[in-house]
Amino acid sequence: MQNSEKKLLVGIDIGGTKTAVLLSLAPPVVIARKEFPTRPAQGPDRAVGLIKSGIHEMLAEQGVDISTIARLGVSCGGPLDRIKGIIQRPPNLSTWDDVPIKAILENEFKAECLIENDANAGAVAEHRFGGGKGSTNMVFLTMGTGLGAGVITDGRLYRGSNDLAGEVGHLRLTKTGPMGHNKKGSAEGWASGGGMAQVAQEAVAAALKKKRPTLLSKLYKAGGPITAKDIGTAAKRGDKVALEVLEATGEKLGIVLAILVDLLNPDRIVIGGLAMRLGDLLLEPARRVIRREALELPAQTCQVVPAELGESIGDAAALCIAMGI
Amino acid sequence: MQNSEKKLLVGIDIGGTKTAVLLSLAPPVVIARKEFPTRPAQGPDRAVGLIKSGIHEMLAEQGVDISTIARLGVSCGGPLDRIKGIIQRPPNLSTWDDVPIKAILENEFKAECLIENDANAGAVAEHRFGGGKGSTNMVFLTMGTGLGAGVITDGRLYRGSNDLAGEVGHLRLTKTGPMGHNKKGSAEGWASGGGMAQVAQEAVAAALKKKRPTLLSKLYKAGGPITAKDIGTAAKRGDKVALEVLEATGEKLGIVLAILVDLLNPDRIVIGGLAMRLGDLLLEPARRVIRREALELPAQTCQVVPAELGESIGDAAALCIAMGI
Repeated sequence: MQNSEKKLLVGIDIGGTKTAVLLSLAPPVVIARKEFPTRPAQGPDRAVGLIKSGIHEMLAEQGVDISTIARLGVSCGGPLDRIKGIIQRPPNLSTWDDVPIKAILENEFKAECLIENDANAGAVAEHRFGGGKGSTNMVFLTMGTGLGAGVITDGRLYRGSNDLAGEVGHLRLTKTGPMGHNKKGSAEGWASGGGMAQVAQEAVAAALKKKRPTLLSKLYKAGGPITAKDIGTAAKRGDKVALEVLEATGEKLGIVLAILVDLLNPDRIVIGGLAMRLGDLLLEPARRVIRREALELPAQTCQVVPAELGESIGDAAALCIAMGI
Repeated sequence: MQNSEKKLLVGIDIGGTKTAVLLSLAPPVVIARKEFPTRPAQGPDRAVGLIKSGIHEMLAEQGVDISTIARLGVSCGGPLDRIKGIIQRPPNLSTWDDVPIKAILENEFKAECLIENDANAGAVAEHRFGGGKGSTNMVFLTMGTGLGAGVITDGRLYRGSNDLAGEVGHLRLTKTGPMGHNKKGSAEGWASGGGMAQVAQEAVAAALKKKRPTLLSKLYKAGGPITAKDIGTAAKRGDKVALEVLEATGEKLGIVLAILVDLLNPDRIVIGGLAMRLGDLLLEPARRVIRREALELPAQTCQVVPAELGESIGDAAALCIAMGI
């Protein structure tokens, strides 16, 4: 790195499985990156040590010192105290009990450190660099094991009063139904990877009863879980039962999206996770429900697209935090 | 008026029944006000003429001329083109077909004129001067014949991509049910004055069948509509059937509020219209449903209160528009 001005951004993405540290001069371009397993079972000290040493090593490799750091950004799951910069025992980091990550890193690197939950930072990343580019009012839905959302209003991240805006997974769609977000019949129960797996179990059982053939029957008979990936693979091979499961999940997703359209009137809804892999198989039924359920003009205005950042969203999210969101 | 600096704000509140014009130096304090029937059946020209002459008269009475006007603000029902300042045939002003109110008033008074729909402006007014004072993230629900909302995020009005954010009345609560917002089983169908009247009709019919006495039976037998006001009056006199109707409506309202709490994590929900008159009879069942249905921390954080501006909300809304929202 030629220029030693104070303009280096440091991103730190702490996940339940792995942690990445990275450097950037112009996000989303990453000039150096290191990754290691987080191992939450071992407590936070080891990982925090590796974050510090990883950043020092990258700086040394670039031939610069900590004085070049403009700001650090930490992305991790909530709950967290964004103002004080404390990680408050997220479900995927259950030993990280009140870790003052901001103070630790500011003390080590003599630069400001900001911290934000990964769902909100991911929304900003997709808005700035991914499927939400050019939109003004955007909702970013993460559809993985769970279902969460980040909300951009008038171009800015909207966090809500407890940093908990966008908890779409908790909305009730039906009185009973698959469990998600600790609630039966919730949006997460119906329209997430976990929910889709629950629906698939029942669909395959019903198909076997009626002697309908399906590529998913082997998995079912072996007693193994049917994952969203299995359903997607079978659907792409034309399996009717798998296609019906995707259609049903897409329709439930559509009900959630219609609520977002009527309430937030966004110009873009960007869907990460499953939607990136399944694409229109999932999104077409959802779009159909939006046209049926939501107000006409807002429904016409809102584009529903898959996320674009894929695996790099964690890096981009951490850098957006370092940029000041 | 002593001071002839350019700092007079002019508010214009155009409703389906009446139109008000008013002057203010420091909203929400009104220093002069005139009101006349809008008479939409006669077309817009008469009313627009009265708006102009009304403002001129008030200025003359204050001993100042148009050079003292800082800005004019027009509040009226949507749809409207906020940027061009055109009223586009709102349902309650069906002859006001593309009225360029901004151009007309700017030409007449040589000052900037802003225009905004009354639901959004009402939300700003309650946030600035009413039940939302001091809140950061607020939803203002108008619960009258219909059910609409205005949304404040991080202290600012959030309009959405088509000025249509906050269309809570259009959300589907049930597959069938009372009609509202052109949709059966919608939030407006269940949780509005109109919806409550539909529910009351059925409740009174059922009560009569079971020979349960109710103060509402006379109205029902006379074939007249049972209004929200009738239900409120009977409930306050301890009528059990009326209380059950209020309870049921409050619970449906609670379902809507729980969605708002989970999605927007507001610190305040302010409810105008019926809630001002019915108070806790309506809001207590709603608060109970929020505690049951919404996420714990956001539910604890969000206060649900009646609106405070009452009849003066139209004036305050028009002045907020003149202030630049």
